[in-house]
Amino acid sequence: MKIIELTGSVSLRRDVESGTSEQTKAVKSVIEQVQTEGDRALRTLTERFDGVTLPRFTVSEDEKKEAYENVSDRELSALRNAIRRIRAFHERQLRESWFFTEEDGTILGQKITPLDSAGVYVPGGKAAYPSTIMMNVIPAQVAGVKRIVMASPPGKDGKLNAAVLVTAQELGVEEIFKIGGAQAIAALAYGTETVPAVDKITGPGNIFVALAKREVFGHVDIDMIAGPSEIVVLADETAPPEYVAADLLSQAEHDEMASSVLVTTSKALAEKVKEEVEKQLDSLPKKDIATSSLENYGAIYVAQDMAKAVEAVNELAPEHLQVMTEKPEMLLGKIRHAGAIFLGHYSPEPVGDYFAGPNHILPTNGTARFSSPLTVDDFTKKSSIISYSKEAFARDREDIMTIARLEGLEAHARSIEVRNIKGEESK
Amino acid sequence: MKIIELTGSVSLRRDVESGTSEQTKAVKSVIEQVQTEGDRALRTLTERFDGVTLPRFTVSEDEKKEAYENVSDRELSALRNAIRRIRAFHERQLRESWFFTEEDGTILGQKITPLDSAGVYVPGGKAAYPSTIMMNVIPAQVAGVKRIVMASPPGKDGKLNAAVLVTAQELGVEEIFKIGGAQAIAALAYGTETVPAVDKITGPGNIFVALAKREVFGHVDIDMIAGPSEIVVLADETAPPEYVAADLLSQAEHDEMASSVLVTTSKALAEKVKEEVEKQLDSLPKKDIATSSLENYGAIYVAQDMAKAVEAVNELAPEHLQVMTEKPEMLLGKIRHAGAIFLGHYSPEPVGDYFAGPNHILPTNGTARFSSPLTVDDFTKKSSIISYSKEAFARDREDIMTIARLEGLEAHARSIEVRNIKGEESK
Repeated sequence: MKIIELTGSVSLRRDVESGTSEQTKAVKSVIEQVQTEGDRALRTLTERFDGVTLPRFTVSEDEKKEAYENVSDRELSALRNAIRRIRAFHERQLRESWFFTEEDGTILGQKITPLDSAGVYVPGGKAAYPSTIMMNVIPAQVAGVKRIVMASPPGKDGKLNAAVLVTAQELGVEEIFKIGGAQAIAALAYGTETVPAVDKITGPGNIFVALAKREVFGHVDIDMIAGPSEIVVLADETAPPEYVAADLLSQAEHDEMASSVLVTTSKALAEKVKEEVEKQLDSLPKKDIATSSLENYGAIYVAQDMAKAVEAVNELAPEHLQVMTEKPEMLLGKIRHAGAIFLGHYSPEPVGDYFAGPNHILPTNGTARFSSPLTVDDFTKKSSIISYSKEAFARDREDIMTIARLEGLEAHARSIEVRNIKGEESK
Repeated sequence: MKIIELTGSVSLRRDVESGTSEQTKAVKSVIEQVQTEGDRALRTLTERFDGVTLPRFTVSEDEKKEAYENVSDRELSALRNAIRRIRAFHERQLRESWFFTEEDGTILGQKITPLDSAGVYVPGGKAAYPSTIMMNVIPAQVAGVKRIVMASPPGKDGKLNAAVLVTAQELGVEEIFKIGGAQAIAALAYGTETVPAVDKITGPGNIFVALAKREVFGHVDIDMIAGPSEIVVLADETAPPEYVAADLLSQAEHDEMASSVLVTTSKALAEKVKEEVEKQLDSLPKKDIATSSLENYGAIYVAQDMAKAVEAVNELAPEHLQVMTEKPEMLLGKIRHAGAIFLGHYSPEPVGDYFAGPNHILPTNGTARFSSPLTVDDFTKKSSIISYSKEAFARDREDIMTIARLEGLEAHARSIEVRNIKGEESK
């Protein structure tokens, strides 16, 4: 890793795959096919892209049971504990509808309603992540979404990954479809004979899934289009270099475009971390990916003082920020932009990726400047409530008509004027 | 207006202008020009599109003072009262950061931070809406956004609309630029020598503004891309037909593509409203627009009973819903999808457009199924807080490593494994 003296402003190098025009064209064509031909298109596309002919897209009871046989007791217990903690955290995010009254009888407020339905896309193949299902499904369930539909591409054997299937069952997801790629997104957005159309689609995926989500956005809601994963570790001389190095590497193994950055006030730590990274890198199964990621998107910045270091963190606006300083909580007020903030030496990112409770679906590419982790809020919507009393109406009618006419909207003024404010009882 | 017997499912006819490919190309070119040439491009483009050569884009103190001379005391007082009520409502939306602790010392939570900056676009020309400024600026101010920048196209005289300029001053907006169209959106997204780049751009505009917002989305955040405005009135026989007619017309005057729909259980009301609409239409200044709007996008549905009527409302998922029934509050629990819900006979839409307090920027085109009014939340973002104690870490480390390895991410497991859990005090 390069050690760089922090002088001016900094930014992560963020190359986002936005898809070639061929890919975009292919995705549009897949979506059209699914819209016009429904299940028949899904069958053909699954044969073409997943290389498997499925008699049906649903998961049989036998397959569901079999999945449990391929997950150890240790694994099952870990998954259950994770679900419990993640659910407990998200339950605290649930918001109630609220209102307030005015003495004249007026009621104003905000009604919170869960979405009717949500679709969760779960990538398949080698990168089958049970944690992804938890992080998408749990907030939707806590929000009160009645219908949660899951789609995931089948393997060559026509089956889903066992851990994925077990996790879905543990969560109580009942509608599971073996469909992947852009065709899955199209089916969830527009519906087919067997797949129900949903109101919102969340979950990660490859470039085709990402492009398809972008295409259907507006017709349905989507979560963010995630970029490559990022970590910034902010550390002083109290941080153990072997911890810092391991944490940087845990990000680097994700993806060749993943970014791992250390910002520190300690030149000594910088050098020790550099050494440790090289040492630990050697024995990693995903050594090649991590090496390439660190080379292109990794860096160690040495800052003059903590104020400058924190300012660099805010400029980076990272997805994950680990604060490994003597008193990390004292810096919390200065940190303006980060998707998730991990404090202290015993809060490495994997604690949050899998277990602590908060969501691991986080804003990337500097969008932490204006976006948030996935939350229960994302599976609800608000409606304003306006119940004006006759008394309030009588008091404010002149003002309302004045503004309507100032804006040149006479019919607006007349909808006020037409209302009788003398006599009769109010409704 | 057509009276239609409600039988099967219903939907609003929603034609959304999504722009021609020429328009998209023009907008892309404008954005590129602003990105590369900055102020010089803004000057050229303002000459071309607004037909005016400006010595500078900022508003002089003289212009600011002069604006007050063109707004009457009555108008000023109405604007101030509206600002007061809208601010009071939005202040109730402000959310605090929260956290909870576990006995072992773990702290988990959610930090709420205002965006650093926001840009508000305000359309100019004939459609100069002071209420738009309030509805965009107030939630940003309440959220705590430090830098609020406004852009609005200059008139042929090189000036801004007086009511717009007065409202901006009343709100305390200090950075006001006389720039319009796609070039204003580009300037706010990327910054120029004089215009600062912001984190989020909100506010309505013509097709070029909408396309430009779509283009810069991702680099900055945007609010929704609004479609034509919609109202649905849900009424029983207690609703005064002249009120209902006036309310339908207030929506219809907005735009030829605006949609005004009555859903009622009363055949008698349906017929009386139809008559009233024709009667009231005649004297409206915007008669032509309203007539065309009602013809193409207006309808009166007569439902068999209230349950069917409410189901139709949920299918329509309207931007504005007025409930004019005997006990409107009894229906609130059944209404799942609507941007704003106006209850009772004295809550016509203009009360909410200008004055009651809730935001008038609402989801259109059926997106009330999954989107919300503009709120203070939209000008803040969340960061997850994860501070695990050494004790919690020791308890959960096996589970975390198990899941990491189940997902094939060895470096994740090692970032747990490397941490010493014996001896030493915890951080």
